[in-house]
Amino acid sequence: MSLVVVGSVAYDGVETPHGKVDRMLGGAATYISLAASYFTPVRIVAVVGEDFAGEDIDLLGSRDIDLTGLERVPGKTFFWQGVYSADMNDRTTLRTDLNVFADFEPKLPESYRSAPYLLLGNIQPALQRGVRAQMKDVRLAGGDTMNFWIQDFREELLATLRDWDFLLINDGEARMLSGEHNLRLAAAKIHAMGPRTLVIKRGEYGAILFREGCHFMAPGYLLEEVFDPTGAGDSFAGGFIGYLAGQGVDARAGQLDFAELRRAVIYGSVMGSFCCERFGVDRFRTLTREEIEARYREFQACTAF
Amino acid sequence: MSLVVVGSVAYDGVETPHGKVDRMLGGAATYISLAASYFTPVRIVAVVGEDFAGEDIDLLGSRDIDLTGLERVPGKTFFWQGVYSADMNDRTTLRTDLNVFADFEPKLPESYRSAPYLLLGNIQPALQRGVRAQMKDVRLAGGDTMNFWIQDFREELLATLRDWDFLLINDGEARMLSGEHNLRLAAAKIHAMGPRTLVIKRGEYGAILFREGCHFMAPGYLLEEVFDPTGAGDSFAGGFIGYLAGQGVDARAGQLDFAELRRAVIYGSVMGSFCCERFGVDRFRTLTREEIEARYREFQACTAF
Repeated sequence: MSLVVVGSVAYDGVETPHGKVDRMLGGAATYISLAASYFTPVRIVAVVGEDFAGEDIDLLGSRDIDLTGLERVPGKTFFWQGVYSADMNDRTTLRTDLNVFADFEPKLPESYRSAPYLLLGNIQPALQRGVRAQMKDVRLAGGDTMNFWIQDFREELLATLRDWDFLLINDGEARMLSGEHNLRLAAAKIHAMGPRTLVIKRGEYGAILFREGCHFMAPGYLLEEVFDPTGAGDSFAGGFIGYLAGQGVDARAGQLDFAELRRAVIYGSVMGSFCCERFGVDRFRTLTREEIEARYREFQACTAF
Repeated sequence: MSLVVVGSVAYDGVETPHGKVDRMLGGAATYISLAASYFTPVRIVAVVGEDFAGEDIDLLGSRDIDLTGLERVPGKTFFWQGVYSADMNDRTTLRTDLNVFADFEPKLPESYRSAPYLLLGNIQPALQRGVRAQMKDVRLAGGDTMNFWIQDFREELLATLRDWDFLLINDGEARMLSGEHNLRLAAAKIHAMGPRTLVIKRGEYGAILFREGCHFMAPGYLLEEVFDPTGAGDSFAGGFIGYLAGQGVDARAGQLDFAELRRAVIYGSVMGSFCCERFGVDRFRTLTREEIEARYREFQACTAF
C-alpha cells in the first residue's frame, strides 16, 4: 500500500577508490523511494531546481514513483560533493550547496494525505513533524535523523519523535541521542522517547532491531566489492519501510509482528547492499525483484545455524 | 576428545572504565583452555614462574585441564598490563614483562602426542610449527597469530600455516596477512596459504567463517555491560575448537561439516561474550554448561528470520 517519502532529491559529486563522478542523481528521498518502489507504490515529496534533468524524472517515474509532490522551483537543485577514504568507512564533505533545498517546506498533495505509510528522511525535525500532522489514518510512520539535529535541535527533535512508530539511525547517532554507549541501554532510552521500534544501522556490520525488550541482529552482507556506499543507509530505510508497506502491516493496534519486522530489516540490508555495487543509483536501473529475493535467500543461507 | 592447547599463561594488570585489577590470572592459553574445558578434556602446554599461585593451579585443575605440560621454571611469570579506552574498543599496553615466557619452548609430554585436537595460541610461528610436528594422528589443528608475526616473521608464519586446518584471526590481521582489504578476497588468499577454514573475529561485531567458497556470518552478542574484554578473542577460540573436539569432527578426510563449523562459531561467540561479563577469568569460576546452552539458544532467537 501507498508510501509517502519526504526528503532531499539532489545531485551528488562522489569520489571513491573506484572512480569519480562529478554529478549524478542522489539525495535521501531518491534512494529511499527507489529502494521502496520494489515493494510498494511510492509518493515522493521533495523540491528540485530548474536544472533537474528530464532523464532523472524519467528514472523515478519508471519505478512507479508518484511525482505529484516533487516541486520544481526557480534556482538550482541541492548539490553535495564528497570523497571517501581508502577503506570507504569515512567520507569527507567537500561541498554542500543547499540551493533550493534551503527553503524546502514539504507540501503534501491532497492525494497523498490518506496514504497509510510515511517515511520521513533526514530533514529539520519541525518539517518532519509538520508532514506527520498532515497525514490521516497512518498505519506506520517513522524516519531518520542526524547528529546536527540531535545536538542543536534536541527539543524540536524530541517533540517530533513522540509521534513516530519507528526510528532508523546509525550507532553513533543512537549513542548521541540517548547518551548511552551501550546499544541495549541506548535502545531502552530511545523507546521511552516515543518510537517503539528502533533500527540501528551499523554500515558494513549490519543492523540491530529493537522492540519491546527483544532484539534481532542482522549481519551486513559481505560484498565482493563496494563501489560507492553513498545512499546505502537510505536504501536500507527504503527496503525496510517498503517491505512493511507492501505487507500492509499496521502499528496502530500496537502489535507489529516481530517476525515481519525482522524480514523488513533483512530486506533493508539487501537493498543497502545492492546500492553499494555501482555508483549512485545506477544499480537500481537494472535491479529486479528476482535478484532481491535471491539475495534474501543468500542472507538466510549465510546466517542460519 | 582430548585437545592440546599451547600458549601463554600470564598475570595481567587491567584497567577498564569499570575498575582496575593490579594482578590477575590471564594469558591466551588460560582463556582458551578454560573456555574449551566446557566441551572437551584439555591438556595445556605453557610455562610459568615460581610466583605462579596455587589458587590459579587449582582453578585450572578444577576444570578438567591436564597440567602435565605446565612447566614451572625459576623466574617470574609473564606479566602484561594495559588500559582500555572509554568505549573499550582500544587498549594501550603499559607494560610487557616476558619473564620466563621469553625462553618458552613448548615441550609436549609423551601423553599429549596422540591427542586428536590442537589449538596453537599466538606465539612465535616456528614454535607453533614445532609443536604441530610432534603431534601424531591429529584430526584438526589450527591456531591464532598476530600483526607482529605477520609483519616481521612472514616466511616463518607461511611455512607454519601450511599445515593448519584452520586459522582464527581478527579482521585487521586478515587484511595484513592477505594484502586485501575486502574480507572475501582476503579469505580466498588465506585459504591458498593452507588453512581451508578461516574464522575472522570482529570483536563486538561478531565473526565470519569462510570455507570452500561459502561463508557464515555471526553477529556479536549484545551484552548489557562489557566489564573487561581481555581474553574474549581467546575464549572465542576455546569455544570454537572445544565444541568441535567435543563433537569428534575429523578434518583429515577433507570434509568438515559446515553446519558443525557454524555451530562452533556460535559457541565461540557465546564463550567470548561470557568472558566480557567479569574481570579476567572470573566469569569462568561460576559459568555452567546450562548457561552456555541458554545463551546459544538466545543467539538463535536473536538471529533467525
